[in-house]
Amino acid sequence: MIAIDWGGSSLRAFRLNTAGVIIDQRRAACGILTGTDQFAHVLQQQIAEWNDPLIVLAGMIGSRQGWVEVPYVECPATLADIAAGMTKIDAPTFPNRSLWIVPGVLHRAATPNAVDVMRGEETQLCGLLQHLNAARHIACLPGTHSKWAIVEHGRIDCFFTAMTGELFELLRKHSLLARLMTDNTALDAPAFMQGIDRARQSGGLLHHLFSVRTSGLMGTLQPEQLASYLSGLLIAHELLDSLWAEQARDCTVHLIGSPALLESYSLAMRHLDITVELHDETLAATGAYALARHRGLLDESFHNSNQR
Amino acid sequence: MIAIDWGGSSLRAFRLNTAGVIIDQRRAACGILTGTDQFAHVLQQQIAEWNDPLIVLAGMIGSRQGWVEVPYVECPATLADIAAGMTKIDAPTFPNRSLWIVPGVLHRAATPNAVDVMRGEETQLCGLLQHLNAARHIACLPGTHSKWAIVEHGRIDCFFTAMTGELFELLRKHSLLARLMTDNTALDAPAFMQGIDRARQSGGLLHHLFSVRTSGLMGTLQPEQLASYLSGLLIAHELLDSLWAEQARDCTVHLIGSPALLESYSLAMRHLDITVELHDETLAATGAYALARHRGLLDESFHNSNQR
Repeated sequence: MIAIDWGGSSLRAFRLNTAGVIIDQRRAACGILTGTDQFAHVLQQQIAEWNDPLIVLAGMIGSRQGWVEVPYVECPATLADIAAGMTKIDAPTFPNRSLWIVPGVLHRAATPNAVDVMRGEETQLCGLLQHLNAARHIACLPGTHSKWAIVEHGRIDCFFTAMTGELFELLRKHSLLARLMTDNTALDAPAFMQGIDRARQSGGLLHHLFSVRTSGLMGTLQPEQLASYLSGLLIAHELLDSLWAEQARDCTVHLIGSPALLESYSLAMRHLDITVELHDETLAATGAYALARHRGLLDESFHNSNQR
Repeated sequence: MIAIDWGGSSLRAFRLNTAGVIIDQRRAACGILTGTDQFAHVLQQQIAEWNDPLIVLAGMIGSRQGWVEVPYVECPATLADIAAGMTKIDAPTFPNRSLWIVPGVLHRAATPNAVDVMRGEETQLCGLLQHLNAARHIACLPGTHSKWAIVEHGRIDCFFTAMTGELFELLRKHSLLARLMTDNTALDAPAFMQGIDRARQSGGLLHHLFSVRTSGLMGTLQPEQLASYLSGLLIAHELLDSLWAEQARDCTVHLIGSPALLESYSLAMRHLDITVELHDETLAATGAYALARHRGLLDESFHNSNQR
């Protein structure tokens, strides 16, 4: 089968054998917010030489701006609930194949205006669940919109979002702070740590952000260090202000992300005495495989491909 | 004399009689970050028919990106300290007039990366000091970079910045949240209040920001309400996370700003049980007049104009 994690900025494609082992993968910067709405055409280009009969897609591709809007499944959501919400799409571009989109997950908190949604991360969490026992675990999936989830007894219990990555990009590209920075995005560890330490002081994020400017003006930090300082500041605020900041201290946080994000988040977590276990983004493929198996799609596609 | 408050986005000009009463004023969107560096030319256009011999300028016009960089005066800073830091500039475009730039003020906190700076607000605070007794007072000057100051015994004791206004503009114009919003900037009071209440819940600003998106997605708020909700969220975070949140509760906060900012901030402060006293932006002129008098420039210019 083929597993596709199709978000706002990029598309990651994985090819798995019948045992669920990844045998090939690729990544392209053709997310659904990057301009195209010719989704079938883009997908065909990305998986041109992969002829597997089953394609499972997850991420913003199932949102209102995506290929087909697939309704959210509500928390607490088991693997079976999410598998049951998968929607088959009609794609004439792919004859003799079946395409399915994984639903997003929604969490409705008791307080007003506190609904939260995810699309794509639920599939990575389904992959993570394959590795965990039934106890309570905290997972963190950093990114444009970081997701924090509590999984327990094989289900996604609840989760919340922090807009850390998006704020970093906005401030780095469009703000007055950007005027003092270079384009350099390599992690400068000392500046990153200074950002973390600044976040631990009183005054709040809106105040701390201004220290990026003054540290640049005063020459405390060099122009090429300011992005790392800003990154440390924002990530530490995500960790310290987190709804589960206290709980995260008492257990291991499962961190799922790209190599660059795993590096910066694990550095910050260790600096803040949070124990962390790292997982790479292939969980998206493992999760899609687990969902396809639960939905009975693996037998079906095996059967279909035998018939052809 | 003429008092000019020249910031990043706009220029405000005031004409005062010898008693310090404002007799004319105007405003133009020709801030120093709006493109021009022909400062003398821009100023000449703005005050074309005002022939007063003394011009006092405050704001980012005295910064590195401005006309002449005037060194900061350090906190605690009295009116006399700030007056002593005023710098005369050589401006052939204005023969027989004297032009002075007011220095910015710098506050150096004990913690690393916690230096803070202001340019322009110190002049408004000098205006405010004319109205206050020697007791301890808190002032809030909301804006792109909001300033909070403690004044006592006729001096600016300490202050800090919150980047509330800049973050609002970034999120409203460039973020994923912007996709759900209309351009409408009129204050929608119910949505604004919902934003304030959301900020009082746990989870931190990075998390709360995402509720702008979900409230739009779920239809809890209409597209034309989302900017007001975001504004309430950010302003309440500025107030609740403020270094002086506790102190502000026990005294009157002197709020200085444009009519629109006075409206939204006073609404938020009252909702959070903070007592507030409103002051308009003419304090910039009153402050410039007080500084000119302290520096002995009023006698001098009176003398000069008599000589002509």
